[in-house]
Amino acid sequence: MFIDVVLTGCELEAVDWSLFGAVAVVDVLRFTTTALTALEHGANGVVPVATPEEALAWRRREPGVVLGGERGAVRIEGFDLGNSPLDYTPAAVAGKLVVMTTTNGTRAFSGIARSRAHAAARPDMGGAALTVLAACLRNASAAARALAEAARCSGKGALIVCSGTDGRFSLEDAFCAAVMVARLEEQAPVERGDGAEAAARLHAVAGGGPDAALQQLCSTFHGRRLLRLGLREDVAFCAQVDVSSAVPRLSDGMLMLEGSRSKRGE
Amino acid sequence: MFIDVVLTGCELEAVDWSLFGAVAVVDVLRFTTTALTALEHGANGVVPVATPEEALAWRRREPGVVLGGERGAVRIEGFDLGNSPLDYTPAAVAGKLVVMTTTNGTRAFSGIARSRAHAAARPDMGGAALTVLAACLRNASAAARALAEAARCSGKGALIVCSGTDGRFSLEDAFCAAVMVARLEEQAPVERGDGAEAAARLHAVAGGGPDAALQQLCSTFHGRRLLRLGLREDVAFCAQVDVSSAVPRLSDGMLMLEGSRSKRGE
Repeated sequence: MFIDVVLTGCELEAVDWSLFGAVAVVDVLRFTTTALTALEHGANGVVPVATPEEALAWRRREPGVVLGGERGAVRIEGFDLGNSPLDYTPAAVAGKLVVMTTTNGTRAFSGIARSRAHAAARPDMGGAALTVLAACLRNASAAARALAEAARCSGKGALIVCSGTDGRFSLEDAFCAAVMVARLEEQAPVERGDGAEAAARLHAVAGGGPDAALQQLCSTFHGRRLLRLGLREDVAFCAQVDVSSAVPRLSDGMLMLEGSRSKRGE
Repeated sequence: MFIDVVLTGCELEAVDWSLFGAVAVVDVLRFTTTALTALEHGANGVVPVATPEEALAWRRREPGVVLGGERGAVRIEGFDLGNSPLDYTPAAVAGKLVVMTTTNGTRAFSGIARSRAHAAARPDMGGAALTVLAACLRNASAAARALAEAARCSGKGALIVCSGTDGRFSLEDAFCAAVMVARLEEQAPVERGDGAEAAARLHAVAGGGPDAALQQLCSTFHGRRLLRLGLREDVAFCAQVDVSSAVPRLSDGMLMLEGSRSKRGE
């Protein structure tokens, strides 16, 4: 199986989609962690949208939706929740649809959609189904297993997309990709693209235990920014590795849960 | 000194230029290697341009220029030379101006210019001088020293830009960035951005000797493509580490040589 890692969301435009049958989007700090948590706490779905305007348009159509997200790591005015996974409690989200926009993670999802539409419009490219998953450290191994399974079923490769931070590479997503690459390689013999090779070589949290992951996250550009904003608990939550076996999957533009629930309650 | 690495050219749009006083562009396979070689062999300057049309416009204005470059790793129709450093012999380029366009490397230079112009047009950004260098494995240590020196003089940070391949990350440029990060850290205490941290963690050619570098280059996506095209000699030439102490520097849109010449003739 061919596996590759997109180290920064901006590379999405250049992805050759004919190679891949499944993709996992990673935004450890914090969108994919938050989306997973919202779904584990009973949200019916999480819709990633690119802009606050799109989120507000959702509310006009569906007044019951919960709006969540951030710009500059801060909750958007008029929104119900920010981007802290700790805000997405069962009381806040159970039985509801959550619509979220964030600076990095939700843009990666819209970037995939845009890049695939662009590819599908070319005469030499056949349209092909793609499984899109959401991964973070909390479900890294489960997401890698689901990614490998979906890729195997498609007969094509598996891609991990690191969302990055504000258009730049971010190390915490690469850590997570490194964990996932290690897990993918346990599933099947793989051929690595350059991005996967780089991720595999990063000394990642893999094997270092949860404290190592927390240290790593606290040392990154984005991690340090969240710490300055007083969000240490968020970072600690996002740094827990493999505490969930649930894997959000995109269906009609909405992330929904398949597989079993979290191994640890909160 | 703050140091960072842009792992793929597409990240350039998001660079905060207020942080950096010097930047080195890396395109090991093959533009920066070829530009260095042309200058070492006596070319008066190498002008990186984004498109074949721009190169042809140069020839209309200046009939004596040598046009070089590739698309899909193959020489462009009507051009004098391709992108093989081995073609840029003294007989071909000494005393001449070379105008080059390539798929990845020359685009990184125009991407920097575009991104800086965008930043300079914003009211909150003062224009600031930036030293732009060209680096490859052949001059990695010399380029790192020149980069550190220019950054120190500016009182700002140093940035290494990996050109990548066809809009994607490429491992051979990250190898070179890793060598350069190691050298920068010998020059001064540094604070690493996430990209520099990732490059530093990649097990790079650093310390592995020239054969290790060649093995690495032959294993990358772009390296494998060049080998399929029968360009093993090119790859071997590009994989020679620290054989030159010359460092091309951009001046009025033209790469020119400063410092001493190659330690090894050919």
